[in-house]
Amino acid sequence: MKQPINLADKLGTFSEHWSPKVVGSFNGHELLVVKLKGEFVWHSHPDTDDFFQVLKGRLRIEMRDGDVELGPGEIYVVPKGVEHRPVAEEEVEVLLIEPEGTPNTGDPETAVVKERI
Amino acid sequence: MKQPINLADKLGTFSEHWSPKVVGSFNGHELLVVKLKGEFVWHSHPDTDDFFQVLKGRLRIEMRDGDVELGPGEIYVVPKGVEHRPVAEEEVEVLLIEPEGTPNTGDPETAVVKERI
Repeated sequence: MKQPINLADKLGTFSEHWSPKVVGSFNGHELLVVKLKGEFVWHSHPDTDDFFQVLKGRLRIEMRDGDVELGPGEIYVVPKGVEHRPVAEEEVEVLLIEPEGTPNTGDPETAVVKERI
Repeated sequence: MKQPINLADKLGTFSEHWSPKVVGSFNGHELLVVKLKGEFVWHSHPDTDDFFQVLKGRLRIEMRDGDVELGPGEIYVVPKGVEHRPVAEEEVEVLLIEPEGTPNTGDPETAVVKERI
């Protein structure tokens, strides 16, 4: 029997915020889980859309022309090039999908290294 | 305020099985929701991995070298070219991600047309 990717189990293996972990691969993209709390930096990705699916908690994604609020099971795709800032008043658990090697801040100089778990 | 993609709301708008509906776009891929019940055909996609995330219910994906069982929140990516057959004993709700225009059966001749909802 093969094993699925259990996102809750993966999220149970770490506690730090703003540190996406790679849990799978799909068509040249990485599937990542991350815990967010507080405010991230304003940034954009010139070459890729940015996929967010909230698994637990609530996430606000601020954009210059209006915000979006996501609860569990909701998805938002920030189009490539659009400046945005994720904000979580309380801890939120999120699935991200990004092309392999995408810097989380939009800038390789300030990006975290993404561990595979 | 912008609106997220609420998968449960989208799934509430139709009842037919094996008819994926497009709910969003991401990097040349479509995000689709689908209700499955029963056995699909054995098929493969020569040019794309096949992303499944179970939202509600249970799904078995049979493959020639072993099966995988997915419950809510679990993901499995069938690698491109790998023959598989989704089977749902009871109705299951699933998120799919596929390159735009991917035939659901692996064959344009037998594929369903995917409506955007």
